[in-house]
Amino acid sequence: MPDYIPELALATPQWFGISVATVDGRYFEVGDYSRSFTIQSISKAFVYGLALEDHGRDYVQCKVSVEPTGEAFNSIMLDQSTNRPYNPMVNTGAIATTDIIKGANPTERLKRILEMIRRYTGHNHDVNMPVFLSERTTGNRNRAIAYLMLNFGMVTEHIEETLDLYFQQCAVMVTAHDLATMAATLANGGVNPVTGERALDERYVQDVISVMFTCGMYNHSGSWACKGGLPAKSGVGGGITALVPEKLGIGVFSPPLDARGNSVRGVGVCRDLANDFGLHVFDIAKPDHDLEAFMATQGADSSDSPDLMWDKT
Amino acid sequence: MPDYIPELALATPQWFGISVATVDGRYFEVGDYSRSFTIQSISKAFVYGLALEDHGRDYVQCKVSVEPTGEAFNSIMLDQSTNRPYNPMVNTGAIATTDIIKGANPTERLKRILEMIRRYTGHNHDVNMPVFLSERTTGNRNRAIAYLMLNFGMVTEHIEETLDLYFQQCAVMVTAHDLATMAATLANGGVNPVTGERALDERYVQDVISVMFTCGMYNHSGSWACKGGLPAKSGVGGGITALVPEKLGIGVFSPPLDARGNSVRGVGVCRDLANDFGLHVFDIAKPDHDLEAFMATQGADSSDSPDLMWDKT
Amino acid sequence: MPDYIPELALATPQWFGISVATVDGRYFEVGDYSRSFTIQSISKAFVYGLALEDHGRDYVQCKVSVEPTGEAFNSIMLDQSTNRPYNPMVNTGAIATTDIIKGANPTERLKRILEMIRRYTGHNHDVNMPVFLSERTTGNRNRAIAYLMLNFGMVTEHIEETLDLYFQQCAVMVTAHDLATMAATLANGGVNPVTGERALDERYVQDVISVMFTCGMYNHSGSWACKGGLPAKSGVGGGITALVPEKLGIGVFSPPLDARGNSVRGVGVCRDLANDFGLHVFDIAKPDHDLEAFMATQGADSSDSPDLMWDKT
Amino acid sequence: MPDYIPELALATPQWFGISVATVDGRYFEVGDYSRSFTIQSISKAFVYGLALEDHGRDYVQCKVSVEPTGEAFNSIMLDQSTNRPYNPMVNTGAIATTDIIKGANPTERLKRILEMIRRYTGHNHDVNMPVFLSERTTGNRNRAIAYLMLNFGMVTEHIEETLDLYFQQCAVMVTAHDLATMAATLANGGVNPVTGERALDERYVQDVISVMFTCGMYNHSGSWACKGGLPAKSGVGGGITALVPEKLGIGVFSPPLDARGNSVRGVGVCRDLANDFGLHVFDIAKPDHDLEAFMATQGADSSDSPDLMWDKT
Repeated sequence: MPDYIPELALATPQWFGISVATVDGRYFEVGDYSRSFTIQSISKAFVYGLALEDHGRDYVQCKVSVEPTGEAFNSIMLDQSTNRPYNPMVNTGAIATTDIIKGANPTERLKRILEMIRRYTGHNHDVNMPVFLSERTTGNRNRAIAYLMLNFGMVTEHIEETLDLYFQQCAVMVTAHDLATMAATLANGGVNPVTGERALDERYVQDVISVMFTCGMYNHSGSWACKGGLPAKSGVGGGITALVPEKLGIGVFSPPLDARGNSVRGVGVCRDLANDFGLHVFDIAKPDHDLEAFMATQGADSSDSPDLMWDKT
Repeated sequence: MPDYIPELALATPQWFGISVATVDGRYFEVGDYSRSFTIQSISKAFVYGLALEDHGRDYVQCKVSVEPTGEAFNSIMLDQSTNRPYNPMVNTGAIATTDIIKGANPTERLKRILEMIRRYTGHNHDVNMPVFLSERTTGNRNRAIAYLMLNFGMVTEHIEETLDLYFQQCAVMVTAHDLATMAATLANGGVNPVTGERALDERYVQDVISVMFTCGMYNHSGSWACKGGLPAKSGVGGGITALVPEKLGIGVFSPPLDARGNSVRGVGVCRDLANDFGLHVFDIAKPDHDLEAFMATQGADSSDSPDLMWDKT
Repeated sequence: MPDYIPELALATPQWFGISVATVDGRYFEVGDYSRSFTIQSISKAFVYGLALEDHGRDYVQCKVSVEPTGEAFNSIMLDQSTNRPYNPMVNTGAIATTDIIKGANPTERLKRILEMIRRYTGHNHDVNMPVFLSERTTGNRNRAIAYLMLNFGMVTEHIEETLDLYFQQCAVMVTAHDLATMAATLANGGVNPVTGERALDERYVQDVISVMFTCGMYNHSGSWACKGGLPAKSGVGGGITALVPEKLGIGVFSPPLDARGNSVRGVGVCRDLANDFGLHVFDIAKPDHDLEAFMATQGADSSDSPDLMWDKT
Repeated sequence: MPDYIPELALATPQWFGISVATVDGRYFEVGDYSRSFTIQSISKAFVYGLALEDHGRDYVQCKVSVEPTGEAFNSIMLDQSTNRPYNPMVNTGAIATTDIIKGANPTERLKRILEMIRRYTGHNHDVNMPVFLSERTTGNRNRAIAYLMLNFGMVTEHIEETLDLYFQQCAVMVTAHDLATMAATLANGGVNPVTGERALDERYVQDVISVMFTCGMYNHSGSWACKGGLPAKSGVGGGITALVPEKLGIGVFSPPLDARGNSVRGVGVCRDLANDFGLHVFDIAKPDHDLEAFMATQGADSSDSPDLMWDKT
């Protein structure tokens, strides 16, 4: 658990939930899949989609690039030639996309983000106030990032308002079930498979999935793309979401994190699912295994030590 | 044309050929698709596959990582924590994979690489001797890279032998037709669609395609993955190869390069094909256009200035 | 003139004043030596001395290193192993030293800095309010620096208060005559040669002079140490101060700046003085020229274009 | 002892010698001051002087800058805007200055370097063949540096010849007594105080001393300039040389090194001498202590553990 968000230290390491949602609306779930936690950086992928809807590809591209970076997720570095953040999956880029979310005032902007998440999950969501306040209090690195971007004219002057919105969206409460639905919505071309509601303009689905694939797992993204082969996004709350285009969405919740801030068991579950079921997007000889049997196996492991279940990379 | 390989300056800017090969063995071709040129960096993707066959994933992973890098293709930087090259698509990584290609002596090692390319294309290939000698003479940056890796024990002591093999594989003569067949072979799970011969062990096809997708277009890879959405690899000889898994392979030849070393028209053709035909790997709402009609359009443009045809990014 | 401080753009390029003060209290002066301008970064050297008096060498050393850096003066980089600013002559380091200046409240802290400058010059100084407000408004890069240091626990939480004090000390009004006296005070072991008042504890004189020598001229410091050979500090207000230990202090005022932010004519005057009079601290065969004759020469040039008088380095 | 030069591992940690030579030809010496060891990087300062004599300041400046760098001594980094090494005290810069030492062939060039050192010490010097061969065998990082500079046209094509000369000059055998005489020669304006022979053109003495002051102690140079305040140069053979302009030269020999490659006891002796005798070049209130008494004290400590005698920074 990251020590810069003291509230997250209260999580129980044993919590472990998996949910898989197919694009035709079926779920395979096990363990703590309905336990709530804060979405954290997973929100970055979806807020990026909303920014694209609000402003279109050309404008958003002026504010944030889509290049992977070897830097850590909280690096303060900007692309030196354009002063843009490297991509919307790192803090710099997510603050830049949050800054341009439309709305007449802070309340309306937050409501638009919550309403966007509602379209993906099919129900309303709360913001965890203690986590929000905790991140706001300790968020001086993000404050430095914001002022540096302001210095380059890349964000507006309402730094604290933008940071509040950024910390609020990170503190939205979700479940592994929700994350699976959100990913399945992307896998389904932007339409929620259960409600049938469109959550993201069809044109931008490929933008969000692409940047999840190349940049979603921090400075582990390249290895992840090669070994896991699933577009994915993790958050320091212990959640991870991944998807197989046109097939299914995955949500995992398990608080213990590796050094890069990815859920140890979450990474393991996604990799195992990808390998066992031939889900790697570039795996051409796809096997045909039994998803329900896989989920049953995971359930048995739920009480084990995560360090033993999944190796740390 | 890159000034560090004087031989390449002899190319005619107007040359322009496109070839598309489907996994069921059909070709759609136009212009200079049967004109020979040096494969250059496109070889890196395929030599990486051979290294995986020679040593397996675990060993190769100790020699070269698979992380994208914001550095230029000829950067001398290594991953500081492991002293590994960032990925096999940049020079450092390609020298590292070349170093481990098996063979009793330099001749046999070169023969194994040429034989590997033969399996992909279905016919034998020559090495362009003037280009090879030209690159060897001016290859001091690659020499520096090799000695730096030797200092860290990442390559063997036969620096000049390894560099010769590296420069030779870059000087292999291919056509746009060949590149289309090579890409279609990957798209077909490693089996040449025309000859039916296996060119790459099924297990490693996803490794090669993944690293083409995340790292294949130098420090433009992230934008390429988002906008083009095709696993691809370009070379400073003016060639570019791209593929749609399970569908088709693309080969383009057009010598004028952009600042990053990618063929200007090659990038444009791949992007247009991807957009017009919904080939982006994460484009879920795939349209259904007429490939033959597209190729006819391209033919008409063959005499135009590339600067007007394709914008430079 | 730096565009990030709009007020400074009002300066007249032709202004040009030189003052040389000896440790026995004589002055050689010419041109606009009594015209006031803002001290800007020259204050950094003297505030560093005050921080040393307030806390001693060991404590100050925990807050700021004394290593030269190849980075620009406004770089946001910190020493990665200790999170300390590289040295007190760049913005990061100066904000760190300003943060630890003692005083019960902001007013008292500013008074202590003004009182310290008074001891060096022998008279009271004003803060230029428009320049202060101008820098405060546009100081978002310094705000980013401060929050980044706060994130590492290197400065206290009163960011805006510290930045105000930093911007105020930069906006103190001085003349070339004052700068010569201040430098002569350091050259005289910390005692003002005219008033006889001690301005800096004898123990810390060598600290201030050393860091001026190695870090005083931004990322030009190494060349300056080799070619000019005088401990010096410049400011974007067009001032520059330099000294010859045990001999004299120099103050120059001329607004046009080079790309690094150093006064073009100021650098030229110091270098000419150093070379013509053998003032380089490591020039062992010191010639013996006529300082009054030199100053007369400079006077004649005062109306010339600075671009012709001094090459840009 | 550095593990990249296996021969140096044979040194005895207890060896400890100090020599102080005044510009009027007196010596104060204790311990192993006449024991021979390899000069290593200390040669860089003197070869820089020879390069200046061979080509003048303007030409040498095109080949190597004089800016301090935060990088380690063996960094491969060059100044990105000019492709020059940062300064002649790091390996890149020393290889660049070695490359331009005049001479009709390798033998003559080595002879000119040995003859130059002879002028400084008053007697002939040997090259330690096993150390030379050892460094040549393991010198792949320096080989990488040389090829990178060749790639930028900063050195000539005779890489192995230049590296041989570089490794040979590093393997020249000297004593602490020699180092004291060499430093005293610089302190005396380039004239050997004992023989009266000129070792370095008067014009370039300040260049050599300046770059020793700002860059001589690797990435510890800034702290050294502030705390020690003596122009100095260390070598991984355990030697260190330092000087007080117009006063004296110091040579210390003690093999145990700190993490930066500086002799632990050597740094300590120089700092103690500087502090106890007010030798800091910017210490204006210079005390007047008894040098002979100091040397007697040092002698008593010669058998102690270096770790206890001198703290490691």
